[in-house]
Amino acid sequence: MAVPGADRLAEAESDPQIAKDDAKPLIADLRSKLLKAQYARLAKADCSLLIVVAGLDGAGKGATVNLINEWMDARHIDTMAFGRPTDHERKFPFLWRYWRELPAKGRSAIVFGSWYAPLFQELARKNPCRSEVERLTSEIRDFEAMLTGDGVQILKLWYHLSREAQQARCERLSADPDTAWMVQPEDHEVARNFKRLRKAAGTMLELTESGHAPWHIIPSADDRLRGIRTGEAILTALRTAPRPPAAADAPALPDKRTEAGARRLARVDYSIRLSENEYDDQLAHWRSRLAQQVRSKAFQKLPVVLVFEGHDAAGKGSTIRRITHTLDARQYRAVPISAPTEDERARPYLWRFWRELPPPGRITIFDRSWYGRVLVERVEKLARPAQWRRAYDEINQFERQLSNSGILVLKFWLAITKDVQLERFHDRERSAFKSFKITPEDWRNREKWPAYTAAANDMFDLTHTSYAPWHVISSNDKRHARVAVIERIVTAIDRRLTR
Amino acid sequence: MAVPGADRLAEAESDPQIAKDDAKPLIADLRSKLLKAQYARLAKADCSLLIVVAGLDGAGKGATVNLINEWMDARHIDTMAFGRPTDHERKFPFLWRYWRELPAKGRSAIVFGSWYAPLFQELARKNPCRSEVERLTSEIRDFEAMLTGDGVQILKLWYHLSREAQQARCERLSADPDTAWMVQPEDHEVARNFKRLRKAAGTMLELTESGHAPWHIIPSADDRLRGIRTGEAILTALRTAPRPPAAADAPALPDKRTEAGARRLARVDYSIRLSENEYDDQLAHWRSRLAQQVRSKAFQKLPVVLVFEGHDAAGKGSTIRRITHTLDARQYRAVPISAPTEDERARPYLWRFWRELPPPGRITIFDRSWYGRVLVERVEKLARPAQWRRAYDEINQFERQLSNSGILVLKFWLAITKDVQLERFHDRERSAFKSFKITPEDWRNREKWPAYTAAANDMFDLTHTSYAPWHVISSNDKRHARVAVIERIVTAIDRRLTR
Repeated sequence: MAVPGADRLAEAESDPQIAKDDAKPLIADLRSKLLKAQYARLAKADCSLLIVVAGLDGAGKGATVNLINEWMDARHIDTMAFGRPTDHERKFPFLWRYWRELPAKGRSAIVFGSWYAPLFQELARKNPCRSEVERLTSEIRDFEAMLTGDGVQILKLWYHLSREAQQARCERLSADPDTAWMVQPEDHEVARNFKRLRKAAGTMLELTESGHAPWHIIPSADDRLRGIRTGEAILTALRTAPRPPAAADAPALPDKRTEAGARRLARVDYSIRLSENEYDDQLAHWRSRLAQQVRSKAFQKLPVVLVFEGHDAAGKGSTIRRITHTLDARQYRAVPISAPTEDERARPYLWRFWRELPPPGRITIFDRSWYGRVLVERVEKLARPAQWRRAYDEINQFERQLSNSGILVLKFWLAITKDVQLERFHDRERSAFKSFKITPEDWRNREKWPAYTAAANDMFDLTHTSYAPWHVISSNDKRHARVAVIERIVTAIDRRLTR
Repeated sequence: MAVPGADRLAEAESDPQIAKDDAKPLIADLRSKLLKAQYARLAKADCSLLIVVAGLDGAGKGATVNLINEWMDARHIDTMAFGRPTDHERKFPFLWRYWRELPAKGRSAIVFGSWYAPLFQELARKNPCRSEVERLTSEIRDFEAMLTGDGVQILKLWYHLSREAQQARCERLSADPDTAWMVQPEDHEVARNFKRLRKAAGTMLELTESGHAPWHIIPSADDRLRGIRTGEAILTALRTAPRPPAAADAPALPDKRTEAGARRLARVDYSIRLSENEYDDQLAHWRSRLAQQVRSKAFQKLPVVLVFEGHDAAGKGSTIRRITHTLDARQYRAVPISAPTEDERARPYLWRFWRELPPPGRITIFDRSWYGRVLVERVEKLARPAQWRRAYDEINQFERQLSNSGILVLKFWLAITKDVQLERFHDRERSAFKSFKITPEDWRNREKWPAYTAAANDMFDLTHTSYAPWHVISSNDKRHARVAVIERIVTAIDRRLTR
């Protein structure tokens, strides 16, 4: 029976060798070229390089990590090594720990124990669970597409050798007391399960091969050749411009947009109002419900992400405060999003948001969010069309991953009309302690009202999903908006806690 | 019996009030002044402000945090709220979690559940443990002195009221179903233990009062007055230049320095050499010992910090690689220290090192370190004399805290002579894959050899401690240096694991 993708492993299983004398000049040449290429990358600092080191146990992956650090300038290479997820890491989406550690542009990182570990483990089981394989595969593919579209180059190395060579290597190292520690218990298991592992490797390579994040098979029976092939693969990668996914070049705006007359913000009932008495009663009622909910035992298992967007002066800040006043300060984190810092600019766009995800029992409130890419960055031309067009899909993938991992994601758009914005701007200018909230930039943004509104309508069409719905809240009356937002939050939490 | 410091609490216990009509104009004035002062701070961005919110339970601390966020621009205030330490946090020194979250210069942060929580808890016990109180007090005092000397202003607020007012406040809130959630179970305990809590508060205020990080008592029985007094204290702080500790202005170089002839680097035996055979045998032996140690069960409880310093070309990088090659990549983190980034420059000097501390079972290897302050920053005049002179004490405090929390700290100076450095520089220039290691800066540094040597000798005199000793290793022969370093590490770990 043909094993899919496994024919790619055949060369490595022929255990090719290289003679010491042949290797020596090759290695000397490779080392100086690698350093030169590494420094050119650093100087340019336009993208980072992730070197995924994966493969059979006992194929010499660890020794190769050491070699790369020796051949290149180790001060500019991060070694990102992951074991089984810790209890803390398990509280977050599967890719969270990889996102957090992404290196800055210009740098290289070796990833050891990468995002392929769970997929390979699943495939190597006697009866792999098909839906788990599909879920992992699709999250990995999305992840790699997003990174390569956003300044991260990915080189994936699979270390492979024949059953006999693997066994011989383990025995040779084990025999010498000075090297016995290099052999792990799991290395001895490989020979016994070789057929299954080989098949799993073949399937995994096939499922996750792509033009922008290709796999390279490194024959590993011979230490010198393993090093040379590794060095050559890295050198080629360092010298090539990273290849973003084909779709990333010029994605069209997806075709799901509604027609002009039926657009989301045109359908808001801006006349809803609450009297002061209604407001006091209802706000106290919903705040008290929320307060009880978040202090319940069941809530301690639920992570919540709240996103607030809206035109300037829509009331985001004051609405957020009505929520946080109800929470214990240890339970939430309010994250105001403005222009990215130096560190943030050196990483893929979503990096800074991944870092703020809440663990179970906590709430992260984003005052503006990753939607900046398809709102302000689109309107102000801070992002290229390819970037913001691609962002709708990327955002949907991101939110689906949050949702899959159990995070409750609620997105609020506080909707006001242009005349109410004007009133509020004037109010702010007149008030001694609100005038800080109004700047020339706000007036400039106001001139672009139609462009912001169109961008928002596209956003609703393209990112309103079952797992992360938009709540468009009429906010010409702040009282109504505050009560409505807290009511939606309480209802959504309730649904999750009682399901 | 007089309770020390408790007389300061008397005014607050008289439960002063303010009438609504008197409060209104005061508050309006305060809010606009607070905003103005906040924006002036942000624009200047020369220091951050930590507002420590502490006090009796049920005094309205939570409501005050909300108020500050309402009165000031919440987007530029971080709310740092800490509960009981998590299992993960317990693995690090007590102050670790506070260090990590320090705000950038220009920003303000409210600290809720601050570093005073454990001290207050201890003091409020029936029989406080005297040595624990002393340890916490001295770590807190050192911490605050270090921060205030380094661009962080600290304002400490103690919320206080009479037993009767505290009880009345809890009862009032509990009676209304819409506000009952604001009352915590522990709030009801306060009245019963009032005398003990009051005494603990008085003692704590006295033990931790200082000119650079003063306590303010906020009378808390009246909501409006509590808010006004809080706002006034913050306003005064924002308007005043932060006051560094008196000693920070112009500390003399401590008097512990040895005489010229007996200085540490003059006493190194630079002639020690190992033959190639000796080297191979000994290196294999010690690496194998190290490999076994770090894979032992006992080691999984030990965090290790290794520091490497030395003149350029002393062999730091290659020695570090001999260590890391012996470790599992998941066990260590090699941290090369160079010029600080934008984020790092906006925080106190030691911030970036605190962030890299290892949990138990892990090793952090610093390739250059916090000693940069008293070496390169001193010699190149990147730090002011007051900064680097103060740094010896700060570094000793830092390392003592690491050691107290169970971290094994080993510091290595690889010692070479000037002629050997010259040889190695020439070697590097001639080698295709070492030439990247030699830059014009290295030649410039070489001209300052005597200044670097003098700085290093001062450093040994002033920071060689029982809890974090310096190991000065003769490194004219790299073979000797590598073996000696690994031997010292193995011996030190052994001593810790078997004690």
